[in-house]
Formats: sequence, C-alpha cells, structure tokens
Amino acid sequence: MNLPSKLLEDTVQAFAQLPGIGQKSALRMVLHLLKMQPDNVERMGETIIRLRKELRYCKNCHNIASEDICSICSDSRRDRSIVCVVEDVRDVIAIENTGQFKGLYHVLGGLISPMDGIGPSQLNIDSLVEKAASQSVNEIMVALSTTMEGDTTLFYLFKKIKPLNVPVSTLARGVAIGGELEYADEVTLGRSIVNRVPYDNQLVK
Amino acid sequence: MNLPSKLLEDTVQAFAQLPGIGQKSALRMVLHLLKMQPDNVERMGETIIRLRKELRYCKNCHNIASEDICSICSDSRRDRSIVCVVEDVRDVIAIENTGQFKGLYHVLGGLISPMDGIGPSQLNIDSLVEKAASQSVNEIMVALSTTMEGDTTLFYLFKKIKPLNVPVSTLARGVAIGGELEYADEVTLGRSIVNRVPYDNQLVK
Repeated sequence: MNLPSKLLEDTVQAFAQLPGIGQKSALRMVLHLLKMQPDNVERMGETIIRLRKELRYCKNCHNIASEDICSICSDSRRDRSIVCVVEDVRDVIAIENTGQFKGLYHVLGGLISPMDGIGPSQLNIDSLVEKAASQSVNEIMVALSTTMEGDTTLFYLFKKIKPLNVPVSTLARGVAIGGELEYADEVTLGRSIVNRVPYDNQLVK
Repeated sequence: MNLPSKLLEDTVQAFAQLPGIGQKSALRMVLHLLKMQPDNVERMGETIIRLRKELRYCKNCHNIASEDICSICSDSRRDRSIVCVVEDVRDVIAIENTGQFKGLYHVLGGLISPMDGIGPSQLNIDSLVEKAASQSVNEIMVALSTTMEGDTTLFYLFKKIKPLNVPVSTLARGVAIGGELEYADEVTLGRSIVNRVPYDNQLVK
C-alpha cells in the first residue's frame, strides 16, 4: 500500500502490529484519528506511553497492578486459602465479572506448549508451587482452557502440587446454561453425564 | 467491565473509540501492548501524537500531506488537465494503487447527505468549482460510490460544473472482472449492456 506521507505510514504500521488488525483496518483507524479532537488524540498517545512505563505486574499473583501488589491481593476481604490459577489477565477479568470467586489468583502468563517452545520454566509455576507449599493455601482451583496445552499444563501442575497435599480442583465442565442438548458436542455432553450433580445441591436454601 | 487498574481502563477506552473496536477487542490490543518491547510502544504513542500535530491537508486537493501541497499535486509529471473527484483519502490511495490514473485529485471530505445533516457547504466543493473555472482543467472525473449520497453529490457537482463547459465523466460501471454473470445484480448487468464497449477498443495494440 502506497501512502501519501511517511508519518501516516509509520502510524499505520504501528497499528498493524496489534492482534487482528491488518493494513486496511489500521488505515481506517488512523484516518479516524485525524478526524478526532486534537487533544483527545494527544491524550491517547500519552496514555499508551504511560501504560508501558507505569503498569506493573503484581509480585504475588502476576496480575496487572499499579502498585507492587495488585488490588485483589491487597484486599483484606479476599479468602487467602484458595488460589485460582489462570492463563492470563483476561481470565482474571472474566472470573471477577462473575462475582462468584472470592479467593486470590495466580496468573501463569501462558500455557505449556512444546510446539511453540514454551516450557514450564517460562511460566510463573515456581512461585505457585511455593505458594502451595506455604501451608496457608487449602485449595488450588485450576481454571485453564480445555485445549491440549491447557490439559498438559493442568497435569504438570497436579504432579507438582500433589506431593504437597494441597487439593487441586478444576472448573466444572458441562452443557452451557441456556445451551440446547442436541447442539452440545459429545465430549462435553458425556462429561456432563459422568459428573452429574444431585438436584438437591442446586436448590437455593 | 471491571479492570484492575485506572490506567489500563483509560487505554482501553481510548482504543474503544476507534471504528470497529469494542471493549473486548480494545482490551486484547492493550494487553498485547504490554507484551511488546517498551521502546516500540513508546514509538507508537509518539507517532500518534505527532500524526495529529504534523499531518496537514493539501491546500490544492485536500489530500493528506506533510507539506502545504501534497506529493501528488507537487509532482510535475502528473497531468494537470484532469481532476478526479473522490470522497476521502482512502479512495485516493485505492486509485493510486491501480496505477491507471495520472491526473490530479480533489478530495471532497464526504458526501452530501441531508439525513446526516451534511450539505454542500461542509464539503470541499467551492474550491473544486474554482478549479473547474480556471481554464486549465479539461475534464472532471467523478469517482464516488453509487449510493444515494454519492449520486446526489454527483448530480449537484454536475449542475455546478456544466455551466463552465468542462466535461464531467464518471467511472465505468459494469460486471466486475472475474465476476460471474449469473451472480451480478440486475442493475449492474443492465448498465453494462447499455454501456457495452466495442471489442476493438479492448485489444492491446
């Protein structure tokens, strides 16, 4: 694509680095920037620069934080005996939005994937094992995707944590709420039969 | 969406202003920024700030320019007797990429659209009429979309330019090259029959 100005081209290239954005969408965004209020665009540029400089990862759970310790880890109302293990920050946000989890998190920063050259040493696994060994944790809840990489990582974590006598749990798998049985895949439907739940347990008491 | 940091939230909001980007895609982009090299992210922020400050519009054709006059208008090899009228900068880029047009451009900056409250006075129409009246222009080629707004604008331009005795042409409309006849819509197919071209003219001589 031949663009009429070097500066325009640089900005388009910068946007085209972002995930899911090609040259054409990047150009569309940049031309939109040109129509926006100048101070609004300046603020956007400054936020991007500040973001990379100021945002840090929590020393305890590796979640995004403005301080050394994130807002979840420093919240005294959270239950410190249960740790939810997730792949990345987006999963923390998704689980927080359900309002159903009151424990702490541990962000691995990825999944074990020999195909992509990612081994256990590149992930935040050692600090998780330390946490599990510290006696203050009663349960490790692993909330990873059920992909090959997710299952491999789960199995690796289980092998590491089992000797410490800390129970490892996973998310319930089953037919989605609102989902129709006939459209559920066989594996999910099969698993939801094996792990069926007494109706008693589901009644609000 | 509850985000763990105010700075993260500000950046997500900034990206969510861009066309075609919702909260979730914006978050995905921002988390990607956090994984990029710090100096790369800083460069991106700075380009955005510079873009809005330094990029100008050509005084002659209203195309994007780094100087007062854009690179196309200042190119002495371009044919100054034919002016191609387009809606916005993206159309200039698309036509330049065909390599088939050697004249100058005139960017209207939009289309007449009473529904959106856009009248002729908000577009770069007066400067086009002045150009047409200047005797140096032998043809105005209007390359606008064939939508209601495009056709309205074309008709308005024609009414303004006709008294000046400058011929107005439009792009050829017809079945796309590589397109199959049975899938062409009736209006396009009908127009391509009315405007059929002698085969003689299409032979490379």
